[in-house]
Amino acid sequence: MADRKHALPVSRKEDFSAWYQAVTAGADLAENACVRGCMVIKPYGFAIWERMQAIMDAKFKELGHCNCYFPLLIPVDLFEREADHVAGFAKEMAIVTHHRLEQRDGKLIPASPLETPLAIRPTSELIIGESMSRWIKSYRDLPVLINQWCNVMRWEMRTRLFLRTSEFLWQEGHTAHETEEEARKEARTMHDVYYWFVHDILKISCIPGKKPDHDRFAGAVDTFSIEAMMQDGKALQAATSHYLGQNFARAMNIQFQGRDDKLHLAHTTSWGSTTRLIGGLIMVHSDDDGLNLPSEVAPYHVVIIPLLKGSDRDDDIVSFCHSIKRAIEKSARVFIDLKEAEAQNKKWDYVRKGVPLICEIGLRELEDQSVSIIKRASNLEKLRIPLNKFEEQIEDMLIEHDKILQQKNEEYFRENTRDDIKTYSELKELFETENKFVIAKWSGSQENVNLLDEIGITIRCIPRQQSNAKGKCILTNEDADMDVILAKSY
Amino acid sequence: MADRKHALPVSRKEDFSAWYQAVTAGADLAENACVRGCMVIKPYGFAIWERMQAIMDAKFKELGHCNCYFPLLIPVDLFEREADHVAGFAKEMAIVTHHRLEQRDGKLIPASPLETPLAIRPTSELIIGESMSRWIKSYRDLPVLINQWCNVMRWEMRTRLFLRTSEFLWQEGHTAHETEEEARKEARTMHDVYYWFVHDILKISCIPGKKPDHDRFAGAVDTFSIEAMMQDGKALQAATSHYLGQNFARAMNIQFQGRDDKLHLAHTTSWGSTTRLIGGLIMVHSDDDGLNLPSEVAPYHVVIIPLLKGSDRDDDIVSFCHSIKRAIEKSARVFIDLKEAEAQNKKWDYVRKGVPLICEIGLRELEDQSVSIIKRASNLEKLRIPLNKFEEQIEDMLIEHDKILQQKNEEYFRENTRDDIKTYSELKELFETENKFVIAKWSGSQENVNLLDEIGITIRCIPRQQSNAKGKCILTNEDADMDVILAKSY
Repeated sequence: MADRKHALPVSRKEDFSAWYQAVTAGADLAENACVRGCMVIKPYGFAIWERMQAIMDAKFKELGHCNCYFPLLIPVDLFEREADHVAGFAKEMAIVTHHRLEQRDGKLIPASPLETPLAIRPTSELIIGESMSRWIKSYRDLPVLINQWCNVMRWEMRTRLFLRTSEFLWQEGHTAHETEEEARKEARTMHDVYYWFVHDILKISCIPGKKPDHDRFAGAVDTFSIEAMMQDGKALQAATSHYLGQNFARAMNIQFQGRDDKLHLAHTTSWGSTTRLIGGLIMVHSDDDGLNLPSEVAPYHVVIIPLLKGSDRDDDIVSFCHSIKRAIEKSARVFIDLKEAEAQNKKWDYVRKGVPLICEIGLRELEDQSVSIIKRASNLEKLRIPLNKFEEQIEDMLIEHDKILQQKNEEYFRENTRDDIKTYSELKELFETENKFVIAKWSGSQENVNLLDEIGITIRCIPRQQSNAKGKCILTNEDADMDVILAKSY
Repeated sequence: MADRKHALPVSRKEDFSAWYQAVTAGADLAENACVRGCMVIKPYGFAIWERMQAIMDAKFKELGHCNCYFPLLIPVDLFEREADHVAGFAKEMAIVTHHRLEQRDGKLIPASPLETPLAIRPTSELIIGESMSRWIKSYRDLPVLINQWCNVMRWEMRTRLFLRTSEFLWQEGHTAHETEEEARKEARTMHDVYYWFVHDILKISCIPGKKPDHDRFAGAVDTFSIEAMMQDGKALQAATSHYLGQNFARAMNIQFQGRDDKLHLAHTTSWGSTTRLIGGLIMVHSDDDGLNLPSEVAPYHVVIIPLLKGSDRDDDIVSFCHSIKRAIEKSARVFIDLKEAEAQNKKWDYVRKGVPLICEIGLRELEDQSVSIIKRASNLEKLRIPLNKFEEQIEDMLIEHDKILQQKNEEYFRENTRDDIKTYSELKELFETENKFVIAKWSGSQENVNLLDEIGITIRCIPRQQSNAKGKCILTNEDADMDVILAKSY
């Protein structure tokens, strides 16, 4: 299709940030709340999150984790126990100081101050560690493998829907183990799970790796992340897993009697993924017509729009829509849109919502028992096939849909990854005009890391897959054999 | 079985409150958190909540509701919009006043005060109403049918696990409609859904009815509740649905252009159920051996305990346990407990956890391919049947299990409901020694309602099912034809 109009008022090229907002609004995913920095996740956006939750939750359980629920509020003095941890979060915590409102001069003001202020959880290592310290007495009680789905709060000054909001939804896994080896294995396993989810389920090309020491989670020994490339060349950290060593066990006194009858500190891990993944999904697969959804997380695979003319055949058309639904609903999530509205408007709404297959059913389709299909991922290509063929091919069509999304993203990822940048000046020049993922050598020393700040980029990760080739550190020009990924990031 | 020992250290008769704690601890459902008034829901307790969520959520969706997520924090000035609402909640709200912690003299103290304090949601009518006021423009946008699963906070001075905690988990449905009739129908439908859930799924005898005016939800026109009877004769309000009239629409400006082209205020409803239901479940079905779970919400229907002796047949016993699992897992949720622990201890753990069928599998069972089963609801009755019979009968055994729970509760309910109390002095005398549900006549007037406070009871509800017999008001001795339920309550 040549120069057709697109469904969004702004394109990726014109203004990436305005485009992101247009996709989010156009698909009716979320909106800014009247509370500073917070968002309202609307039904369609939340349905995507529910799909994500269901898939991840089943995998966590398959691996032996149980869900629990721990308190939202954490006594501020618990944070005094882990210096690195509090240093990382103190600047962005919402603090509860009162437990009553009082009417004074027609205004409501906080009353009944608390003895100990309470922080709204920014993450739950401390409060969960406090429980673990009571739960774990012997090596026989290990491992403890738990997860919770909840809201957390990190006060943000500049916010963007899904990507950065003061409150967000997430899952946080927390585990305690007898040995370092076991705990490291758990952190690695969950890193693999996230890679599987982002790569295989969300069809997003990404690089799993370890964070450099200066960018670890506050209190962790090692942090692993998944780095995905957005369509503006910037990186998004999609999920993280941490090996926490004995730091939190020491802070919270998680001790157990070992096989040697002596007391030992447990080794703990934590790992999390958030509604930010929806932001990543948007920035990876959407185009100038709006959202595109991989089938596993699409609330609907197929939306059927009846084209009604107010004639006496309308009821037959609606009946035929139901026949189509019945024919394919074993293989696909199907919705018939019977709302009173212009069919054309509906069609463009579902284009913007990224429904993989949009079917328009009118008199013509009724008469020859066919289905007109718009393939969202194939530049809105149209085709018309007999209903029985549609029934036969629906699964393959969804597989094809996913492949197209995956291939487009792989291609973009390949084209925007550079491994030919060898010096800092080349790096600086590149990022003056473009955003890319750069694979470069790093010595691992902190020397000159500040040079990266100057050009607004960071070491995203030390990729798991290393080339093992020797070279020169892009920051110090020393000999170096470690590959790192450099990029701007969200 | 005559005078066998029971699995709990305290019985219902000895000390109901200590017994409740013993059931909760014995089944490892939850514990008090280190944060005042909050609880930790442990894996087994949370698994019950997940089952409840799955069943209710599917029903809500079947009825057209979509899940969303709204902010945790509500600007305090929003509460100034609805006087009754704030009057109901002001005394128990956690208030965020700062967004940073600062280290001073080695202590962490709140810093960066907020311009407008924020309340942690005690319920979300206002913040959701604020969104609805933007979403709804025309009658074509109605109805709006949404729900959210989240945490809420109501500061409580005296707390009890599940029954009364400062933070709890719940679902809150919020809907907006074009007409009063439609909104009333929605409130009624959701009242029916809750009755179905409590009565048909949880197997709890209960009375659906309307709250008297003096006990409505803060800001509602009508409140409907489900009143269940605990094993100490007290009432537990299990879930509520509210017809809110135009009160919240007025406060939050939820207006729409009607079919007559004029502006109208929407009619709204809200309805909620909480983790308190788990407390109800405990107090209704548990006995002096611990928890009893209706099959729909039991994390496991069957637990298989291998009786291993350290002999060379151990592996065969474990294999046989897996064969049993395979044989029944299409009809039941099954868990094989392979942990290193005394089989006797395991058995009593699962008795206390209320697993419907506990299977012990040793050499004897292996040799004749049989299964030894302890039926939890039948006073731990034991039977031994061939595996193929077990496979055949498993579904019926679970149905039988549920019937026993339901019948026991129905009987208790019947035996502890009195309809022969005609005067206030009889009522007073009764409640001096016993807790019962009393069906009595009430004139509907507020006169003498304070007499009920004096004996610590309340009008639980005006039951949906009315006898229509005439009589005398138990408070005023006037003619009265309205039946009400009187009881002590949680």
